[in-house]
Amino acid sequence: MPPSNPDWVKALKPSGPQGSELLAAERAKSELNVDELAEFLFTKKNLDRNARILSILQEDPVFDKSQNYFRGRHDRLKAALARGKALRRLSVKHSWTEEEDHVANDLLSEPTPYGLHAYMFLKTLEEQGSPAQHKKFLEPARKYDIIGCYAQTELGHGSNVRGLETTATWNPEDKTFTIHSPHLTASKWWIGSLGKTATHAVVVAQLVLNGRPYGPHPFVVPVRDPKTHLPLPNVHVGDIGPKLGYNTMDNGFLLFNKVKIPHENMLNRFSGVDPETGKYTRPANPSLIYGTLTYVRANIVMQSGSTLARGVTIAARYCAVRRQFQDNDAPKDAIGENQVLNYTMVQYRILPLLASSYALYFTGRSMINLYNANQKRMAQQKDVGGSDAKRGPGPEQLAAGSDLLADLHAISCALKAFASTTAAEGLEVCRRACGGHGYSSFSGIGTWYADYLPTVTWEGDNYMLTQQVARYLLKSARAVLAGKGSNNGISQVLQEFIRRRDIGAAFDVLGSDQDLVDAFAWRVSYLTFEALKHRDEEKQSWNSLLIDFWRLSTAFAQYQVVKNFYEALQDEQTKASVDATAQDVLHKLFQLFALYHLSNQGAEFFTSAATTVRQIQLATTKRTLALLDDVRPHTIRLVDAWKFPDWQLDSSLGRYDGKVYEDLFHRASEVNPINDVVFDPYPNSDVLFRGEPKAKL
Amino acid sequence: MPPSNPDWVKALKPSGPQGSELLAAERAKSELNVDELAEFLFTKKNLDRNARILSILQEDPVFDKSQNYFRGRHDRLKAALARGKALRRLSVKHSWTEEEDHVANDLLSEPTPYGLHAYMFLKTLEEQGSPAQHKKFLEPARKYDIIGCYAQTELGHGSNVRGLETTATWNPEDKTFTIHSPHLTASKWWIGSLGKTATHAVVVAQLVLNGRPYGPHPFVVPVRDPKTHLPLPNVHVGDIGPKLGYNTMDNGFLLFNKVKIPHENMLNRFSGVDPETGKYTRPANPSLIYGTLTYVRANIVMQSGSTLARGVTIAARYCAVRRQFQDNDAPKDAIGENQVLNYTMVQYRILPLLASSYALYFTGRSMINLYNANQKRMAQQKDVGGSDAKRGPGPEQLAAGSDLLADLHAISCALKAFASTTAAEGLEVCRRACGGHGYSSFSGIGTWYADYLPTVTWEGDNYMLTQQVARYLLKSARAVLAGKGSNNGISQVLQEFIRRRDIGAAFDVLGSDQDLVDAFAWRVSYLTFEALKHRDEEKQSWNSLLIDFWRLSTAFAQYQVVKNFYEALQDEQTKASVDATAQDVLHKLFQLFALYHLSNQGAEFFTSAATTVRQIQLATTKRTLALLDDVRPHTIRLVDAWKFPDWQLDSSLGRYDGKVYEDLFHRASEVNPINDVVFDPYPNSDVLFRGEPKAKL
Repeated sequence: MPPSNPDWVKALKPSGPQGSELLAAERAKSELNVDELAEFLFTKKNLDRNARILSILQEDPVFDKSQNYFRGRHDRLKAALARGKALRRLSVKHSWTEEEDHVANDLLSEPTPYGLHAYMFLKTLEEQGSPAQHKKFLEPARKYDIIGCYAQTELGHGSNVRGLETTATWNPEDKTFTIHSPHLTASKWWIGSLGKTATHAVVVAQLVLNGRPYGPHPFVVPVRDPKTHLPLPNVHVGDIGPKLGYNTMDNGFLLFNKVKIPHENMLNRFSGVDPETGKYTRPANPSLIYGTLTYVRANIVMQSGSTLARGVTIAARYCAVRRQFQDNDAPKDAIGENQVLNYTMVQYRILPLLASSYALYFTGRSMINLYNANQKRMAQQKDVGGSDAKRGPGPEQLAAGSDLLADLHAISCALKAFASTTAAEGLEVCRRACGGHGYSSFSGIGTWYADYLPTVTWEGDNYMLTQQVARYLLKSARAVLAGKGSNNGISQVLQEFIRRRDIGAAFDVLGSDQDLVDAFAWRVSYLTFEALKHRDEEKQSWNSLLIDFWRLSTAFAQYQVVKNFYEALQDEQTKASVDATAQDVLHKLFQLFALYHLSNQGAEFFTSAATTVRQIQLATTKRTLALLDDVRPHTIRLVDAWKFPDWQLDSSLGRYDGKVYEDLFHRASEVNPINDVVFDPYPNSDVLFRGEPKAKL
Repeated sequence: MPPSNPDWVKALKPSGPQGSELLAAERAKSELNVDELAEFLFTKKNLDRNARILSILQEDPVFDKSQNYFRGRHDRLKAALARGKALRRLSVKHSWTEEEDHVANDLLSEPTPYGLHAYMFLKTLEEQGSPAQHKKFLEPARKYDIIGCYAQTELGHGSNVRGLETTATWNPEDKTFTIHSPHLTASKWWIGSLGKTATHAVVVAQLVLNGRPYGPHPFVVPVRDPKTHLPLPNVHVGDIGPKLGYNTMDNGFLLFNKVKIPHENMLNRFSGVDPETGKYTRPANPSLIYGTLTYVRANIVMQSGSTLARGVTIAARYCAVRRQFQDNDAPKDAIGENQVLNYTMVQYRILPLLASSYALYFTGRSMINLYNANQKRMAQQKDVGGSDAKRGPGPEQLAAGSDLLADLHAISCALKAFASTTAAEGLEVCRRACGGHGYSSFSGIGTWYADYLPTVTWEGDNYMLTQQVARYLLKSARAVLAGKGSNNGISQVLQEFIRRRDIGAAFDVLGSDQDLVDAFAWRVSYLTFEALKHRDEEKQSWNSLLIDFWRLSTAFAQYQVVKNFYEALQDEQTKASVDATAQDVLHKLFQLFALYHLSNQGAEFFTSAATTVRQIQLATTKRTLALLDDVRPHTIRLVDAWKFPDWQLDSSLGRYDGKVYEDLFHRASEVNPINDVVFDPYPNSDVLFRGEPKAKL
């Protein structure tokens, strides 16, 4: 650590007004009740719980973040492993629930090498293991006597799971499976917790029986020696190298050279191989396998709002402290510079994202409700089908539940793509809105963004997912045209479009919120029927329609989010939980979110005849400006309501007290280890850092 | 370094077809003459020069890139300093020109701690120093006997240079200036080459004479002891900490506690303080100070095309090697998976960026021509004005040149903003198009993008610049309306718009390239006159028009780029240099670029009545698809023409030979130093990395 600053430096303050004064003035501008809004979003119980867990973490030096931004990969991984162990010990000591574990990790704000053990290894064993396999694998795993990961993705295959190359061949003679990597591209890759940490892996491999392929199935495979932690024979395993972010996780590669595992290692709750006959039992209900994927996607949607809100919190606070230039129309004798948050071009970048964070929050709640409704129905179906999960529900039950499942699947795909893109791209907009200082690691946004970025690719690449949404919409449209529309939400929207075929539409998007929501629905219908015409009538190739499908899926997702936000505002629970000021502000955020997207997609709204040109012009200019102006005074309180503690944000720019410059300067001059180093700057000298060995130049 | 892979791993190959086979097939699809196109873009002389310099660098282990992605900040800076010294020695040894120095740095592809010494310190001394100051400072600086930097930006002030807080107060009694930092926010910040390297700084400080402020001026200030390299008394200097990227540069902070410098340290070629009388001489022509800014912005425009092309090269090659799924309409018995570059949604993301890289290349050439024309005119004015540069040209010469200067200033602002945004955002699109593997550091795009990102903020924040462009366009529009339009390009465009006021427009954007260019011009005029109406007639505040100004400036920049691309294709020089195939392909790129932007801004084109809705629909769908299809077979040859050697790209995904998977696997398993480490994964053990001391958990 560099020495403390000299006294004459310590005596310096930023030129006034101070950041703390500016933020206090901001908070005084608005009557929004921050605590009431925060309790509505999170519940008082959870907020108290989070504060309790925070103080436990803050007590332990292993979680001290002050060196985080300075560490190289070696030290970063070491610190992350230490934190993973410490969190596990705390979890056991305090008997934390899964949710409390999640809160602790969230406050820490970086993955640890145990991440996929808890998140995927345990869940997969639970859901796909038989009772015997629970005893053999799940119990020791829960105790962390074995550490696992979920090894599906390969070097050559990510999205196309059917193309996985790792094989699991049944050996009837000794009742084993041979796990083998026939090509380099079969190497497992990207596998979290595998690179250095895991002792075991759930390996998804192509089941081969009697020379015939049966598709990908999950197998528990030991990969490292329990004592030495070295790779087992014929296993090649390691870390895949540094990444743009996510460097506190040891993503790994994994190759097998004909490794044998016993029959009991094939997770066989839903499908398996009879050890006597060698016959294959297929899963009764394929949708049971989809269940986890949908859950993961719903989770991504749920977290997208708060993910984005972190960046918005930092950018909003900083832009209220940062002052530059005077307003162009200020009187000549005006003193002091203008807060950059007063510039409409800055508001235009940040405030729609503030609106998006709230919109995604409400959509996340709606997503989880839909997911739970489906889980409930599926549980009912299992009961009807009998206690043998392998048999599953019969065709009638399947049909009854399939609408809900189809809706859930399509909505989760569309929203996963839209929500993660909105959050990721929004974070970068926030970072840039912080100007030069946004580029410093101390801004806290860069690292958060870089760690979040894989979310647009994993669990379903965002572009790939849009095809599934399009498939669903086309199928629904075909049914509607054939007079067989179901009762689900999208069928009603499509039917309304057809009903109005000879009337046209007239949506008062600037005068009526319901009309605004309906305009988004109309655009979805228009794009769906256009796509259907291209595909069914004009027989265009699927490939040639991919761009249209992406636009269609995005429109569908935007409609869902706008609708969810609108419905949340109408909801009695909302009206009972927050006062009139908050309801009014949330209403402005709703309008800002919807009209911002309407403006940006003006051509589609116009082409679909959902709105007139004039409405788009007004939305884009006058109305957006008016909404920015309405939201501006409440900005700081609106971000305060997300209740991110400074410790979690780890950001000089986003501190609650606004001491931006003091914090930046302190980190740079008194913590930054490179300031212990003295260069030899002369080209003809072979010395680089004084006191270190010369270089060979 | 981890041990070599076991033999059974070494024997593995990717599943076929091999990447090299796929790229060879791609190159066989097209007749485009790569070498001819490359020579047209760069000249044979320069290509040969680059190859010569590359082989010099490749010989020296100090430039070996294989550990680059693995290093932490300490080692990264040390290696960068070593490389800076080695480059300097090579430059002296081979008598490299400034251009050759630039090529070497470009091939290295990362800044070194000498970066701002060469780029800003030397240039500022040259341009703003008197002959005596050249002798005192420039000569030793050129020999690297002193190392310098350009210290303008402060913690509290970036864009608003007039607000800088560092003061330089004249002391008539001993003919010195006192350099002082009155507030913490006065600290110089972000200063490249200062953090650890520089012995001197050109400090931009507020000149104070007799208690009166005279604005920011440049002063040479020693900051470190020439022998010990420790900070001089009352100077606090150091590195500002890690950043999102650019971590091979030591950006620094700098505070002064009443440091005295002699009179001769104020750079006084254009303005100064008479040491006897203490009177201030103001600069004769303020535009002389703008000169450097415009040069820097023109350079950014010039480099934007190749900056983006690096990412496009990597993404295009990788997406031609990466195969996933079969085409949806493929016959049931089809074998093998589809190259992802065959999917229209992937083409839609990459090929318009390929078009943009060429568009920005031609715009860069045009930008430099305009800059040189202005330099020539200014030199003529100086001659007319006499040899005393302080006196400068008289009012008549100023007026004659001021149109050209005003055009240059506005175009350089608009293009700097547009080109750097296009390149930065385009690089991230390229990275994401590489799916999961795009997230690995070995993709080569992440680091390149992160290092490039400050370009959207420095040398004029991109949003700030759009105001200057708007000012210029409004001023031109007022002149046109008053019948006083000049002969410059934009006045003609505005006049045409006015002329057609009662006729309307009819641009055959899909049938005529000239009409397509004119439609972009029309849109600029429409937005300009709309903004003028809001400002002059409706008296709207400047602040409320900032978003409109940003849209207007973007439209103006897009028009410039489209026009430059079109004119380059008409140019005889182009027609003489490349064959008909190349001209046709470049023409397709031109259309793709223009129509891609027209589609994305459909609402503006429609609202301005430049096109019909139908034209926008067709551009967005059928025509774009057709152009993607036309360009697709030439994609690999088009990126090959940029002639980026593998050594420069340092990318597993972007290798010329397509050995993507072999390269990724090699780097991860045989070079990645973390694979020398063995974890202790058990939570109850205090051991983290085996063989290293226990942690205190």
